[in-house]
Amino acid sequence: MIKVSVVGAQGRMGSHVVDAVNAAPDAELALALDAGDDLTQITPENTDVVVEFTVPSVALGNVLALVGQGVDVVVGTTGWTDDKLDAVRAALADAPREGQSVFIAPNFAISAVLADYFARLAAPYFESAEVIELHHPDKVDAPSGTAIHTAQGIGAARAKAGLGAVPDNTQTDGGSRGQVVDGVHVHAVRLRGLNAHEEVLFGNAGEQLVIRADSFDRGSFMPGVLLAVRKVASGGFPGLTVGLDHFLDL
Amino acid sequence: MIKVSVVGAQGRMGSHVVDAVNAAPDAELALALDAGDDLTQITPENTDVVVEFTVPSVALGNVLALVGQGVDVVVGTTGWTDDKLDAVRAALADAPREGQSVFIAPNFAISAVLADYFARLAAPYFESAEVIELHHPDKVDAPSGTAIHTAQGIGAARAKAGLGAVPDNTQTDGGSRGQVVDGVHVHAVRLRGLNAHEEVLFGNAGEQLVIRADSFDRGSFMPGVLLAVRKVASGGFPGLTVGLDHFLDL
Amino acid sequence: MIKVSVVGAQGRMGSHVVDAVNAAPDAELALALDAGDDLTQITPENTDVVVEFTVPSVALGNVLALVGQGVDVVVGTTGWTDDKLDAVRAALADAPREGQSVFIAPNFAISAVLADYFARLAAPYFESAEVIELHHPDKVDAPSGTAIHTAQGIGAARAKAGLGAVPDNTQTDGGSRGQVVDGVHVHAVRLRGLNAHEEVLFGNAGEQLVIRADSFDRGSFMPGVLLAVRKVASGGFPGLTVGLDHFLDL
Amino acid sequence: MIKVSVVGAQGRMGSHVVDAVNAAPDAELALALDAGDDLTQITPENTDVVVEFTVPSVALGNVLALVGQGVDVVVGTTGWTDDKLDAVRAALADAPREGQSVFIAPNFAISAVLADYFARLAAPYFESAEVIELHHPDKVDAPSGTAIHTAQGIGAARAKAGLGAVPDNTQTDGGSRGQVVDGVHVHAVRLRGLNAHEEVLFGNAGEQLVIRADSFDRGSFMPGVLLAVRKVASGGFPGLTVGLDHFLDL
Repeated sequence: MIKVSVVGAQGRMGSHVVDAVNAAPDAELALALDAGDDLTQITPENTDVVVEFTVPSVALGNVLALVGQGVDVVVGTTGWTDDKLDAVRAALADAPREGQSVFIAPNFAISAVLADYFARLAAPYFESAEVIELHHPDKVDAPSGTAIHTAQGIGAARAKAGLGAVPDNTQTDGGSRGQVVDGVHVHAVRLRGLNAHEEVLFGNAGEQLVIRADSFDRGSFMPGVLLAVRKVASGGFPGLTVGLDHFLDL
Repeated sequence: MIKVSVVGAQGRMGSHVVDAVNAAPDAELALALDAGDDLTQITPENTDVVVEFTVPSVALGNVLALVGQGVDVVVGTTGWTDDKLDAVRAALADAPREGQSVFIAPNFAISAVLADYFARLAAPYFESAEVIELHHPDKVDAPSGTAIHTAQGIGAARAKAGLGAVPDNTQTDGGSRGQVVDGVHVHAVRLRGLNAHEEVLFGNAGEQLVIRADSFDRGSFMPGVLLAVRKVASGGFPGLTVGLDHFLDL
Repeated sequence: MIKVSVVGAQGRMGSHVVDAVNAAPDAELALALDAGDDLTQITPENTDVVVEFTVPSVALGNVLALVGQGVDVVVGTTGWTDDKLDAVRAALADAPREGQSVFIAPNFAISAVLADYFARLAAPYFESAEVIELHHPDKVDAPSGTAIHTAQGIGAARAKAGLGAVPDNTQTDGGSRGQVVDGVHVHAVRLRGLNAHEEVLFGNAGEQLVIRADSFDRGSFMPGVLLAVRKVASGGFPGLTVGLDHFLDL
Repeated sequence: MIKVSVVGAQGRMGSHVVDAVNAAPDAELALALDAGDDLTQITPENTDVVVEFTVPSVALGNVLALVGQGVDVVVGTTGWTDDKLDAVRAALADAPREGQSVFIAPNFAISAVLADYFARLAAPYFESAEVIELHHPDKVDAPSGTAIHTAQGIGAARAKAGLGAVPDNTQTDGGSRGQVVDGVHVHAVRLRGLNAHEEVLFGNAGEQLVIRADSFDRGSFMPGVLLAVRKVASGGFPGLTVGLDHFLDL
């Protein structure tokens, strides 16, 4: 059994993680901590892996502290800059236990991670590519970070394959063609009833390939969180790893 | 048998009309004319209905002449302004035969006409509504006229039902949210391999309704053209009629 | 304010109704009763409309009792046979208050009701029609009652329009063509992560019309329940009404 | 310039190949032969690659003859059994020129090949998987060979990953659940207006991944045919190669 502690256990994501750990046949909940609780309770004796789902302003401090206490950490909080990642790497270099791991993922939904990966693979083989993301209307940023990441991946794969600009003979437009990210048009839909969805469209003469990832609720992140917990607990990923695709055998 | 003459018979659409008339069990081709041919060959004796698929610069002249010659006309050419429509109405008032008909349709694809109609019906019952149109990359205008028409219909139906603005908490956007037409966000995708497609999305808490019309090729217009020919030939629509929805029993 | 009592208030659907009534600006919760509670507490003085969401074995008895107590009832419980409906009609004929109403709906999701309605309207205009329904894998019946209803509606509309059988040149099949309901092929998908979805596909040469209704969770029924409560409370629907489409201005 | 000869040049596919070769910047048409023409006209001097698109009854004979004449062959004709493939391998072993190539593909649409490949990659990560294929109603077999291949790939990938049966609590069904291929439910839709389409659905709690390939017309095969011609002409694939995925850098 993998002993899992949760930091941010009363948050919207953290409470799902607590449930998922309790339901997993190969994991058990060690400590469930939240704001104000003493992180030093978490030790290598009572915890194999910590799952950290808090807020960007405190996540770096939490991760540095936990690394210093000798435990592995799976991080779901967002807002990681290169500077912050470097700080984590430095902490890992000085970690008390050999082979300690930190894993950070911008997105734990396996469907979203696969869609992003498949889009990069497919991009060299199509003349046209566009991205449509669809979210609930309370989201404050458009397009989503995931859609930007996907468009950047497509753009880079096209460039590497020597493809030029996508064909587009539009001469008059009042804004309907969307935002262009690395040469790829990105559209953001906001619709009550939806949660988080991404659709990537590729086209050649006479054919289309569509890859769509739907995240219907927060539960969609739990298989990815548990996968990360298992991979980190296996000891096979010392140091810092960023992105769930590293844990998929693709 | 309905005797059908085609004006613009060698054009991209007109040649399809010739084929469709020849294949229809209840219609037969009378005259197939193109640029330079003498329209006065078309008479009530040899022709029940003329199908006019030419270019905007000559269509009004053709229609006025044909009305004066006493035949009914189904028009697929686009570019009709209110002034032009008034000119057609005036010609019909002076037409040599009683009950003469002219029918003009911005879109002959039955799927597109139904999607537009259903969108107006559904609009009052949903908090959110957006329109995505998708076309081949050689199209010069974005969004499509059909998408603008659909968005306007949704906007009008929402206003009549007393609905306010669609929910949208977007605070940062680089253009991904599309063009706003009468309060409805419209997105235009351009993809090699596609022809002409429209998707209308409606959302409430926990539910979504999607209406999608796909026109894969020009053949998609022929069932609508034949429907119009039959309705006009039936004599039941004297005067000017605009829009294929008038011929659907909805 | 419409005074609403809920019978089955602790059930999966009933608890959502309690929340929806509490959140509605024009309704207030009167009594929330469940199995074992005394229904005679509900009177015309404390309640305008009762929402009944229990189980088929007790629903008829509940409705008959409530009608006898002089209150209007909106029923979400399923399993209504013609005999049961006749019993409700008889009770309404003897009801203590003039113009009393009972409303029964097999489906309260507005998107599903509209999809079903639009499918009947569109059916006469297409050569081909098929239905795909998609649900969570814990559903015990396939295809869904809603999909059967939609297929029956399409079949009836095709027959009325004089359309023959759908084109289908399949000569070898191991079961992939699905179940045929009134001449319409119906396919049932069972997929973890989905809730309740229906897609209706119509095809002509060169064109397709797709109508899709997604119910992501039980909250999707609440706008329909509140609509029914308001319509019944308005007094405009005396007697028995079956089907939410009667309350949509279509 | 790659010199390309076409065998079956007047057939439905072959005539498209002739057009595609003429339009390609790096290929030129050598000989265009059809039934009754003398294949011995094709020599290593006038031809780098032959594209063979005929019928199953003559394809093996054509390929064996062409290999004997010292030219490379790209084959689009279907109906290849293990015995026939062995005969091709034997002919290649005795071929007059060193490093001669034969390439055979069951499907030249890049979108379909990628969808099939991605489905195998994704399969281990989802509880549920189903396949829907959609074709024109003149197709005689259901489900399509491509859909069977995709389902078999998913089934094999699930088995290798140790996944059990897909969750399915269906207790009553009149045939709507489709055909089960290696544990994967496969549904076949036949709709006028469609050509050849495949949709693969994967589901976990709270999430869905959809991969869809649309082939709108025969032109969709041409990018794949040209890719095969270029790869074979490069000399990098001596011997027999089966399947376009070998030519994609995945």
